[in-house]
Amino acid sequence: MRTLALLTSGGDSPGMNAALRAAAKTCAARGVRLLGVRDGYEGLIDGRMLEVVPGPCALLGEAGLDVLGGQGGTVLGSARSARFREAAGRAQAAEVLRSAGVEGLVVIGGNGSLTGAHALAREHGVRVLGIPASIDNDIGCTALAIGTDTALNTIVQACDNIDDTARAHSRAFVVEVMGRACGYLAMASSVAAGADAVLFREQKRDEDTIVQAVAGVIQQGFARGKRRVLVIKAEGVEIPCTRLVRRVEERLGGMEVRAVVLGHLVRGGHPSFLDRQLSARLAFGAVVALLEGATDEMVAWNTPLPGGIPTSDGSVKRFPLERVLQETAALEDGSSPVMARRLQLLQQVEGVLPL
Amino acid sequence: MRTLALLTSGGDSPGMNAALRAAAKTCAARGVRLLGVRDGYEGLIDGRMLEVVPGPCALLGEAGLDVLGGQGGTVLGSARSARFREAAGRAQAAEVLRSAGVEGLVVIGGNGSLTGAHALAREHGVRVLGIPASIDNDIGCTALAIGTDTALNTIVQACDNIDDTARAHSRAFVVEVMGRACGYLAMASSVAAGADAVLFREQKRDEDTIVQAVAGVIQQGFARGKRRVLVIKAEGVEIPCTRLVRRVEERLGGMEVRAVVLGHLVRGGHPSFLDRQLSARLAFGAVVALLEGATDEMVAWNTPLPGGIPTSDGSVKRFPLERVLQETAALEDGSSPVMARRLQLLQQVEGVLPL
Amino acid sequence: MRTLALLTSGGDSPGMNAALRAAAKTCAARGVRLLGVRDGYEGLIDGRMLEVVPGPCALLGEAGLDVLGGQGGTVLGSARSARFREAAGRAQAAEVLRSAGVEGLVVIGGNGSLTGAHALAREHGVRVLGIPASIDNDIGCTALAIGTDTALNTIVQACDNIDDTARAHSRAFVVEVMGRACGYLAMASSVAAGADAVLFREQKRDEDTIVQAVAGVIQQGFARGKRRVLVIKAEGVEIPCTRLVRRVEERLGGMEVRAVVLGHLVRGGHPSFLDRQLSARLAFGAVVALLEGATDEMVAWNTPLPGGIPTSDGSVKRFPLERVLQETAALEDGSSPVMARRLQLLQQVEGVLPL
Amino acid sequence: MRTLALLTSGGDSPGMNAALRAAAKTCAARGVRLLGVRDGYEGLIDGRMLEVVPGPCALLGEAGLDVLGGQGGTVLGSARSARFREAAGRAQAAEVLRSAGVEGLVVIGGNGSLTGAHALAREHGVRVLGIPASIDNDIGCTALAIGTDTALNTIVQACDNIDDTARAHSRAFVVEVMGRACGYLAMASSVAAGADAVLFREQKRDEDTIVQAVAGVIQQGFARGKRRVLVIKAEGVEIPCTRLVRRVEERLGGMEVRAVVLGHLVRGGHPSFLDRQLSARLAFGAVVALLEGATDEMVAWNTPLPGGIPTSDGSVKRFPLERVLQETAALEDGSSPVMARRLQLLQQVEGVLPL
Repeated sequence: MRTLALLTSGGDSPGMNAALRAAAKTCAARGVRLLGVRDGYEGLIDGRMLEVVPGPCALLGEAGLDVLGGQGGTVLGSARSARFREAAGRAQAAEVLRSAGVEGLVVIGGNGSLTGAHALAREHGVRVLGIPASIDNDIGCTALAIGTDTALNTIVQACDNIDDTARAHSRAFVVEVMGRACGYLAMASSVAAGADAVLFREQKRDEDTIVQAVAGVIQQGFARGKRRVLVIKAEGVEIPCTRLVRRVEERLGGMEVRAVVLGHLVRGGHPSFLDRQLSARLAFGAVVALLEGATDEMVAWNTPLPGGIPTSDGSVKRFPLERVLQETAALEDGSSPVMARRLQLLQQVEGVLPL
Repeated sequence: MRTLALLTSGGDSPGMNAALRAAAKTCAARGVRLLGVRDGYEGLIDGRMLEVVPGPCALLGEAGLDVLGGQGGTVLGSARSARFREAAGRAQAAEVLRSAGVEGLVVIGGNGSLTGAHALAREHGVRVLGIPASIDNDIGCTALAIGTDTALNTIVQACDNIDDTARAHSRAFVVEVMGRACGYLAMASSVAAGADAVLFREQKRDEDTIVQAVAGVIQQGFARGKRRVLVIKAEGVEIPCTRLVRRVEERLGGMEVRAVVLGHLVRGGHPSFLDRQLSARLAFGAVVALLEGATDEMVAWNTPLPGGIPTSDGSVKRFPLERVLQETAALEDGSSPVMARRLQLLQQVEGVLPL
Repeated sequence: MRTLALLTSGGDSPGMNAALRAAAKTCAARGVRLLGVRDGYEGLIDGRMLEVVPGPCALLGEAGLDVLGGQGGTVLGSARSARFREAAGRAQAAEVLRSAGVEGLVVIGGNGSLTGAHALAREHGVRVLGIPASIDNDIGCTALAIGTDTALNTIVQACDNIDDTARAHSRAFVVEVMGRACGYLAMASSVAAGADAVLFREQKRDEDTIVQAVAGVIQQGFARGKRRVLVIKAEGVEIPCTRLVRRVEERLGGMEVRAVVLGHLVRGGHPSFLDRQLSARLAFGAVVALLEGATDEMVAWNTPLPGGIPTSDGSVKRFPLERVLQETAALEDGSSPVMARRLQLLQQVEGVLPL
Repeated sequence: MRTLALLTSGGDSPGMNAALRAAAKTCAARGVRLLGVRDGYEGLIDGRMLEVVPGPCALLGEAGLDVLGGQGGTVLGSARSARFREAAGRAQAAEVLRSAGVEGLVVIGGNGSLTGAHALAREHGVRVLGIPASIDNDIGCTALAIGTDTALNTIVQACDNIDDTARAHSRAFVVEVMGRACGYLAMASSVAAGADAVLFREQKRDEDTIVQAVAGVIQQGFARGKRRVLVIKAEGVEIPCTRLVRRVEERLGGMEVRAVVLGHLVRGGHPSFLDRQLSARLAFGAVVALLEGATDEMVAWNTPLPGGIPTSDGSVKRFPLERVLQETAALEDGSSPVMARRLQLLQQVEGVLPL
């Protein structure tokens, strides 16, 4: 009987469990054994793996796969692994897979996790297939990563809540969302939340410019008779929310401005419909690709980039991990045309001011 | 000053208000006046129109556009119009637009609404641009209509709720979702909810076959040690839920099976992130297209069909309304290849049994 | 080491798991062993019991008690038991408890479950303590049963959703909620949802009167310029929603009226704050009472009735099960003064018309 | 025709709009005119008042009262008023009410707002009735203030989200909730969320003690095999979350601990069922009391204190504002027996460690 393994790694994102469910169902339908690796690469090195079967099992208890897809986080666990960053750790991981007769490994995670998968493939010939998972949507070659849609829904609902109190007091709010390198969450949510302005690292503004711009947006907003002004700020903009708000208040002569930092709240929660569907499609694509002999690639969603290999699911394409990692770096350093496109859309569509 | 008008028509869907907001902001940024038409074509015939401005206004009250995007339903109202189905009614509607100096009309709605828009354009030379809105996602030429994503999120959350009680009693549930002609909601939600089987009109099964198949799925599910069996049924499958459940119970020798009909619950609610973003993009595309002189077309999202005209937003393309209406009919009668594709994906990805 | 057991029985309600968690923590803090009984009295007769410990365990998996309190349904399972209705079944259940050295049994459930607990105590001298759990809030001697608050939150949110679509079309809706014998859910939610009228069994109206009254409320509502009319109907009012709506439409000369039956949707879902707190308090009270030697009683919340025994938690009082069952019957046949009080409040506070 | 006025003041809380709705309906049913005051005492001084009627009106737009009860924030607005703290401002406010023929004023708010109401009554003979509204539940003489239940539901859901990511990484989280003077939100939510420990100002621990205790709880939790440790901290505990987490991490030799500050997120959102019901009951009680000639009092919910005057709604009692303000001060300085009782319950019920 053929055997595959699957691990989740890096920051957890809603939909990882739905991907595990789809992979387990796809394997079961093809008579393939699936091993779930505990706690990412750390558990892989230690050989901590459990068989995932459709019925009740040790990992999932009585509920089995039935309700797994709706759960946030990752039931397999995730962890950083210092050992896996060393050559010896990766060699041990490869040896664990060989001994267990694993023919292919599905890696669900972000940039670091995919870099690790690429290393396993290149250095030890392990067959790997990556699935992009990141609430920040900062992974190259895919239009969407697992977890991003849920995070955006959580942010938009939080902004709706904040609007209630903002309008009650005719008040301005700065809401900080996750996204150290990538301002996607901030940009996308600012459109959906009807924000007045958005701050993200890629704009490369200095602190004084930002303070001045935020104060200007607030002043003009209230001057136009608005009952609330909303500014969304990506985590990557280095000025901390409390300092930003204090400096803006000073500039506005004592008008109160409030800050909310959403932080890890955005990482959890039941995956949205789209994240469940996306996870199912990508996991199916990854398992089938491994069984067909593919390796060192990532499955991607609905991507506008040329050159991907369509899988049997038309919405899913595959790209070499090497290219994925290059595109990811280009997203991060701002040289990717995708970034310019996102900015352009932001300004056109809803009149959100990028600061 | 140039003037556009906008109406929402047919069944309301979450995101219609977000589309109105984006249209209003886009118009304001270009110095164009936007009139909101009350209660669809019915209000158009009667000339009931209000100017929509960014600040506080008669239609929106103090909150103005700021929080409009997060509201379900449609603030403009919608209605069926028997008068508009007559030539005289359409002539009067065209006359109202002419007298008010309206250069272009944005119509947000489903199949019937777009048919009406097409008639206005063809018969009276009214410049119209359609935006697809339908929780059923039954409109041709677009991958997604406004409201579908929110409806799917509502369904998936309802199924999560139902799973709690199903597992407590080791019970089978049949959940009926909207979709008279089109089984998309049923199909898509069955994958995301981890359902065991899905019923939809397009399968064209007779009642006896359905009863037998549902009973079989339930029996096999519990035999495999499952704590719940979930079957999702589209409204379009003609056997009513209560009769289906009663006949399945008889066949299973008295085992209890429960039914839940989600109905209009699925139509309301705050729009999801994706529906807000989609609405913003499509409304922007429609307004710009009208201002550039386009007419008798619909803006579509991310469509896989060849032949669309890309707008300045790459994700949005435009198609002639005539073609849209043909594709919509093909979706309904099952002759569209999109339908076959959906079915194929359903079976592959999550092992949901189409009955 | 002393040993207690706990079972959940009858219809599941959100908060049962939170009660199990609190009981387990209370037992652990006192060095008492707690056995969880599977599937209610049915599992008790068969001796299916598992030890519930604070850390990872067979029943709960790795997550243990930590997240149990937030889950809907009941992880122990529930079931109807025909055998327990026979004397022989109850004798066997008592024998199972004796053999396992169980000194006291906590029974979480509604009227039938508490009747069973009372029988065990009276017939076999089993020490039992009941905890009222019922989304219908139809249990005597307690102001609130576990699950009612969550059900009401679910109903109110559903009505908010339905309001979106009702206002879009200026439409009337009839929403049916659970509650065969008891109209509490309908009455309480009608106030919170701002309904126009409410129908419940206790009013004892005949069908013609109901049809006429509902039609009147709808007609007057729209005549006063309202954009929606909302009527909430308890399941116990015998006319089915579809027939009610059809007859009302006829009476109104073809105006469309829509019906939504919420059904089992209302039974699931994450327990609300109040249900988690209530469950914790009642479970603590029940465990402490059993350890102090009490039996054949139920713990009750914040009750206005005289004669209860205060537990160490002032909000919790204890009542003999015999009295609880009498009060429950009085609620059901309408002879309880609590019922008259509820009706009076309904009319006073929000002007909801009881039909 | 008799006239009453109503204002919302201080921090907004979910349920204020439901109270306005119930007051408006109660007035309408009694033929009393109700004026809504804009932006609290600030608007009162300036005479900014609008009539609130059951149908469409200037303040509420077309939707009128129907959906008002489900909205967060306060549609009347709220504001701090420096002028009202001066005798001249209060005199002007009283004069405004006299000129408008207002016979009684309902004040919905917290400690400061009720202090203002008391001053208006004592200094100028204005008939006032207070309604307690505060998400912190820090108002004397009432078991519950408007907004607290919704805030607790929001907190508990946020903790569920955070649990997902905590368990994925076997990580400890410190979650800060509102409550400067009063630890009620922290205490109550810690029980419902299954937290391991809770920090609140009333414990009066110094920083070093807190750091040591939190580190101990985390260490012991993971030593017992837990997958997550959750500590809830009230805002009033002076050590900022970031510093607390940094110091705990140092003490634990570099183990990662994460902090989330929920802040204003908790203030908004749709009111829960209980807050809508509570608001309706209290507003009804306040309007009726004013019409019966009462003044300088507050309506309270279900209070355990002796000496309240029962209103026609048995769950509602009235207390002199003077006494309410004294009890509120006693809650704040820790001398109230209610505080000791809360602490005792906390420790008993769920084993949450107060630090």
